Amino acid sequence: MDKSTQYKIFNDPIHGFITVPKGVILDLIDHPYVQRLRRIKQMGLGYLVFPAAEHSRFSHALGAMELAQRTLNNLREKDTTISPAEYEGTLIAVLLHDIGHGPLSHTLEFNLIDDFHHEMMTLAIMRKLNRQMNGALDLAIQIFTNQYAKKPFLNQLISSQLDIDRLDYLKRDSVFTSVYEGSVGIERILKTMRVYKGNIVIEKKGIYAIENYILARRLMYMQVYLHKTVLSADILLRNIFKRVQELIQAGASLYQPSPALKFFLENQPEATKGISQQVLEQYLQLDDNDVYQSIKYWQHSDDPILSDLCRRFQSRSLFRTTFLDSTPTEKLKKKVRLKTQKVLKERSLPHDDASAQYYYSFDESYSEAYRYENEGIWILEEKDKAVEFSKAADTQNIIALTQPVVKPYVVHMKSFDIK
Amino acid sequence: MDKSTQYKIFNDPIHGFITVPKGVILDLIDHPYVQRLRRIKQMGLGYLVFPAAEHSRFSHALGAMELAQRTLNNLREKDTTISPAEYEGTLIAVLLHDIGHGPLSHTLEFNLIDDFHHEMMTLAIMRKLNRQMNGALDLAIQIFTNQYAKKPFLNQLISSQLDIDRLDYLKRDSVFTSVYEGSVGIERILKTMRVYKGNIVIEKKGIYAIENYILARRLMYMQVYLHKTVLSADILLRNIFKRVQELIQAGASLYQPSPALKFFLENQPEATKGISQQVLEQYLQLDDNDVYQSIKYWQHSDDPILSDLCRRFQSRSLFRTTFLDSTPTEKLKKKVRLKTQKVLKERSLPHDDASAQYYYSFDESYSEAYRYENEGIWILEEKDKAVEFSKAADTQNIIALTQPVVKPYVVHMKSFDIK
Amino acid sequence: MDKSTQYKIFNDPIHGFITVPKGVILDLIDHPYVQRLRRIKQMGLGYLVFPAAEHSRFSHALGAMELAQRTLNNLREKDTTISPAEYEGTLIAVLLHDIGHGPLSHTLEFNLIDDFHHEMMTLAIMRKLNRQMNGALDLAIQIFTNQYAKKPFLNQLISSQLDIDRLDYLKRDSVFTSVYEGSVGIERILKTMRVYKGNIVIEKKGIYAIENYILARRLMYMQVYLHKTVLSADILLRNIFKRVQELIQAGASLYQPSPALKFFLENQPEATKGISQQVLEQYLQLDDNDVYQSIKYWQHSDDPILSDLCRRFQSRSLFRTTFLDSTPTEKLKKKVRLKTQKVLKERSLPHDDASAQYYYSFDESYSEAYRYENEGIWILEEKDKAVEFSKAADTQNIIALTQPVVKPYVVHMKSFDIK
Amino acid sequence: MDKSTQYKIFNDPIHGFITVPKGVILDLIDHPYVQRLRRIKQMGLGYLVFPAAEHSRFSHALGAMELAQRTLNNLREKDTTISPAEYEGTLIAVLLHDIGHGPLSHTLEFNLIDDFHHEMMTLAIMRKLNRQMNGALDLAIQIFTNQYAKKPFLNQLISSQLDIDRLDYLKRDSVFTSVYEGSVGIERILKTMRVYKGNIVIEKKGIYAIENYILARRLMYMQVYLHKTVLSADILLRNIFKRVQELIQAGASLYQPSPALKFFLENQPEATKGISQQVLEQYLQLDDNDVYQSIKYWQHSDDPILSDLCRRFQSRSLFRTTFLDSTPTEKLKKKVRLKTQKVLKERSLPHDDASAQYYYSFDESYSEAYRYENEGIWILEEKDKAVEFSKAADTQNIIALTQPVVKPYVVHMKSFDIK
Repeated sequence: MDKSTQYKIFNDPIHGFITVPKGVILDLIDHPYVQRLRRIKQMGLGYLVFPAAEHSRFSHALGAMELAQRTLNNLREKDTTISPAEYEGTLIAVLLHDIGHGPLSHTLEFNLIDDFHHEMMTLAIMRKLNRQMNGALDLAIQIFTNQYAKKPFLNQLISSQLDIDRLDYLKRDSVFTSVYEGSVGIERILKTMRVYKGNIVIEKKGIYAIENYILARRLMYMQVYLHKTVLSADILLRNIFKRVQELIQAGASLYQPSPALKFFLENQPEATKGISQQVLEQYLQLDDNDVYQSIKYWQHSDDPILSDLCRRFQSRSLFRTTFLDSTPTEKLKKKVRLKTQKVLKERSLPHDDASAQYYYSFDESYSEAYRYENEGIWILEEKDKAVEFSKAADTQNIIALTQPVVKPYVVHMKSFDIK
Repeated sequence: MDKSTQYKIFNDPIHGFITVPKGVILDLIDHPYVQRLRRIKQMGLGYLVFPAAEHSRFSHALGAMELAQRTLNNLREKDTTISPAEYEGTLIAVLLHDIGHGPLSHTLEFNLIDDFHHEMMTLAIMRKLNRQMNGALDLAIQIFTNQYAKKPFLNQLISSQLDIDRLDYLKRDSVFTSVYEGSVGIERILKTMRVYKGNIVIEKKGIYAIENYILARRLMYMQVYLHKTVLSADILLRNIFKRVQELIQAGASLYQPSPALKFFLENQPEATKGISQQVLEQYLQLDDNDVYQSIKYWQHSDDPILSDLCRRFQSRSLFRTTFLDSTPTEKLKKKVRLKTQKVLKERSLPHDDASAQYYYSFDESYSEAYRYENEGIWILEEKDKAVEFSKAADTQNIIALTQPVVKPYVVHMKSFDIK
Repeated sequence: MDKSTQYKIFNDPIHGFITVPKGVILDLIDHPYVQRLRRIKQMGLGYLVFPAAEHSRFSHALGAMELAQRTLNNLREKDTTISPAEYEGTLIAVLLHDIGHGPLSHTLEFNLIDDFHHEMMTLAIMRKLNRQMNGALDLAIQIFTNQYAKKPFLNQLISSQLDIDRLDYLKRDSVFTSVYEGSVGIERILKTMRVYKGNIVIEKKGIYAIENYILARRLMYMQVYLHKTVLSADILLRNIFKRVQELIQAGASLYQPSPALKFFLENQPEATKGISQQVLEQYLQLDDNDVYQSIKYWQHSDDPILSDLCRRFQSRSLFRTTFLDSTPTEKLKKKVRLKTQKVLKERSLPHDDASAQYYYSFDESYSEAYRYENEGIWILEEKDKAVEFSKAADTQNIIALTQPVVKPYVVHMKSFDIK
Repeated sequence: MDKSTQYKIFNDPIHGFITVPKGVILDLIDHPYVQRLRRIKQMGLGYLVFPAAEHSRFSHALGAMELAQRTLNNLREKDTTISPAEYEGTLIAVLLHDIGHGPLSHTLEFNLIDDFHHEMMTLAIMRKLNRQMNGALDLAIQIFTNQYAKKPFLNQLISSQLDIDRLDYLKRDSVFTSVYEGSVGIERILKTMRVYKGNIVIEKKGIYAIENYILARRLMYMQVYLHKTVLSADILLRNIFKRVQELIQAGASLYQPSPALKFFLENQPEATKGISQQVLEQYLQLDDNDVYQSIKYWQHSDDPILSDLCRRFQSRSLFRTTFLDSTPTEKLKKKVRLKTQKVLKERSLPHDDASAQYYYSFDESYSEAYRYENEGIWILEEKDKAVEFSKAADTQNIIALTQPVVKPYVVHMKSFDIK
């Protein structure tokens, strides 16, 4: 049979053609739960700094699925047996790996559901889909949860220091943000990947592509994901939601949020209690638009703080981020609070201690380009010898560069300087 | 003074660095009216076919402004005098040229306001901004409306067969859709542009870049803007809105639209009567999100047709487009209606004549790669001789390719074939 | 067996990775006859205008072979049976398709061997290789000479209006010359190619990629291959060789050419008499370097014309090309001759009629972007209907653009203008 | 005056347009001494591994000159005064910085002239040009030799850890070798460069672009410049020349080298004695072609070793490189010699100790991505505080990665393994 009729082809600026197998995969892509990812931006508020970084989790999911295909095809070329069911299961797991993300992803994770991690929601949604599709996702779920003991390397493609998710998002984000330095040589990495004793390893000739990948990841954190202005926009958005919840607890009625968002704001579900079907249903109705629509109307709220914060958001009047040399002292905290109160007072805004807290925040950024303990990347140095990347020849010094980087910072009004 | 401190720099995957002059231009960019363009996709529903075409009118507006700067700098190099005020005015006019677009742009233009053209709204918003900014946009408005007789070429940069708007969107759209064939050599076009007797002309050595530009435009229409599936998605969206208005006229209460969208649906303003301040205020609250949020909730409407159409939209169960060799006959129209009714009946959906009309549509697509009458592109063939492009040497036959292309089509349910 | 060990991988800026099958193909690539192509530039003297267009026929041959693999793999995906022997034969034929080119290719073809066409030399060399390799090229030669009646489409990949040679060189040349407008969407063309009734056709959805390909080819001729300065450099080089032969016929001894070049200059073999083994041996010793080395030393020749022409070549003091509106009149020819003689006289160079002829030349450039007669590109419009491209829907007017373009011109000294 | 007529524009795949100022700069570019660089490949024998790395020192020189213009323009934007004469002088110095390179550059440096460094030849040629051009290069020579005390930063652009030479060749080589990981974000580096207290510094926001630049340089050394096969090809070429000189010293007459090459082989000039006008004249006649032509004919030499080595070169039958864990022992050296002799004997080639030495070589590769002592890159951390890059925040560990890497290796026949 003509294999070319078994595929639907999409164009992609990152990978060229994306080949979608008809059947379960295409059905999933068209499913409203996956289509919902079109309405959640991959980089959250990143577009406020990088104006073209408007791409969605949907195009990332498609791209990752395409990379999964190329990876599996390459592994087959190298005589690793992968059955059609395993092939499909891996594609599904990759396609759905981020389906549990909610609006604005990491920024609001904790504001909507207490103690929330998107992975648990991903699994809940995958199971719901599996029921709807009569078990078609059984193997995908096994692979996703690392319970497919027969071929552990399939899970490694989905979740490890060198998983397909990272390869796609690093490349995609570096293109859309136009941060050239974060670019990754995916093609070479895939070409040098193989399975050795059941695990993913990289052939020796790919070692510099790996070095480059790790350093590109480091740079993307430093220049993009933890960009000062992105950090400050995140704080502004979180404080808007903190204020809303404060108002709700005080008995105020919400102005114009969507039904689904209202549900979460009023009910405050807790992740530790498990995810009920009701929570799941409502969650699947949520996307970035619920947040943006609400903010648009909350500008007109009676509450002066909420309306001021929302107006700031709409006109990009963000706070400033100042990195600190060390953990902030109590003295500094007090100084920031007092300065903030002074400015608020001048602007005739509420300026008591509690109100001021919506206008500054102390936090620290954390990034780790490569974690070699337990889940490191392995290099096949010789025919029968694999070593963890940081122990391979020529790379001994790279560990230094991959230490976690922790930077304390304060987000505050632009009217004053900290240093 | 150090000029580099007078700019803010943004990254852009299309143009590299975008340099934004501080002052009026940066103030405008951060203004909520311009920020609103972040929530309107440049290509409307195009992302349903080209998954990465999710870019907004905002990033296009920034890109066009950057191109305007490069163009004006080049013209100055060629001894065309452009005052700082004219420079700024042109940048403003380019930045704001599309600010009048509403949600989903062309797709819904007529559904929200009768007889609407986004240009009139653009002008109304520019005037409103001008009042807020104490006349800072006076010259920009003159240039935009072609009333700046002193330098007609400035208006040509904003609105002509070779304007900056087109250069940016063709390039941008071809990258994000990954339709390589639509790519345009902007750099060469800008390098060979100059002012001759007060008008924009292209130096002779740029003639093939122009040929390529016109043909790229043709290809973008054929392959992207008028793509079958995009046409069918447009029809689906318009029919959703037609149904909603039908329901409103029948006295039904709307389910969960945003206040601004509700205003337009219930009041049906007419453009021919001019744009009132109230209409303008509400319009400036509207963006794509209002539409997407409504559709999300209209899925649960009591009206079986509305909920069915919205569910289709959410799960990408689009109609099919079939191009016709000639204007459809009455016989064909009847055939399509009967087949539609049959399918609707089988699915227990309303299937009277009026109901069926939401499930098919006859229309025709129109494209014109280059219009040489009145507003053609001029080539400077010799030191003192400019000729219209289609009359220049080596291009005599190109007119053939630039005839308007009109293709009748029918959008219908996938359950049956037309041919 | 692990297929990845059966390949050697090269990097290529155009296609990414080039995968070379070990065995006959790799042996051929390392063969001195093929390695010789490293010393012949793909674009002849084009680098004098486009400084980075220094790529060789060798890298083009490798690139074309890679495209052949991708094409054959795609065709197999669409259920066209291609045996391993046919696959290898096609790759060989593509790899060697230009092996008969001599130094500076088209520029000097006729100066070295009378009535020469590189295709006959290609075949002679293929046969010589075939003898050395004990018949390993039998099938490749059949395919190359279109005598493999079983699968005519294999020959079409090698020689037709849409052959792999063109796809690689258009793309490669457009990148290295940085003539963006000549860029071709190879990937889409390959994706939409299939075999229908034994012949290569393009699926309907590829029709705009074909339009773009034909127009890109047209542009490359207009902007690159027939660039004014390239034409004038070609004339200069040919006139250097004409002068050398004049001197030889007059009995002068040659100053420092290489033995192989000397052989051709002194013996003037004629292609119509067939290619002797001696001619073949000497030809395989020739490459661009023989020409460049000779010119370097001929600068110091006693003959004032030869040394002047060679000095011009070394210092890029080229002639000027002026395009003419029509076939040159005798009057114009006389005028150019007289003006040339005047300048030569002023410079104390020989300026009799015969000498002057080395300083100007009348010629005409010819290009044809697409030839639809006999060997056109076919589009598969419907499941069972293929039409020639120019007759397909939406392209009816393209024939106009693909008329052969013939432009008379004169190459002359820069000291005077023609018009 | 119309500035655009003061430039000649070239296309470049790396930088887009290259703008060449008419006058001295253009005269220099067309000068035979500079045109000679067209016949010297930038990457020496690198094309044997990276087939498209065929670019010349000429296109690199042009590219570097273009970058110099962009850099100087940017510095001027930041209020650094640069006079027209300084501007031109810097461009000249950058354009000519590599003009002293001989055939095959570093590979043969010591084989042609004892104790040679191309920098001394560069200066000699610049002075010769300066005499021909009546002092037009005076300032350029001052800047090049760092004797222009007024503006030391101009010399830093020409020769430092972050000079324009490196920016162009890293980018250019990474593109032509298609080693993606070696790519450098030139645009951002230029944008963040400024003059501070008379020296070049990088603004703080450019720090990651610098990190990326240093690591890209490291990767290019590891993957490209010191590639195993390139190292082995270098040895083969050097041994060919060693053999030729051995033969000359033994009184053999050379077979067919060009006059210039013959001069160097027979006279063996010594750099320590200074460069005579005769040596200079002959040197300016030399390019890669002299070497390649000779090898082509030396294949047919009577000397069995020379002809064997040359045949290997022509058919890419290179030696193998094996990296060693430590400095080679005498035992290993003996083992390699004995194995080599055994193979030579089997092949009926001379196999005495002296002869065997042409078939293997012990050496070590050296690379240093960044040298921070004395000539480091400085970061402008605050308005009035510049620190050396390795001491700047967030980069403290990078020194580890920039330690010189020294790797001993042996080049030997492929018939046996070392380990």
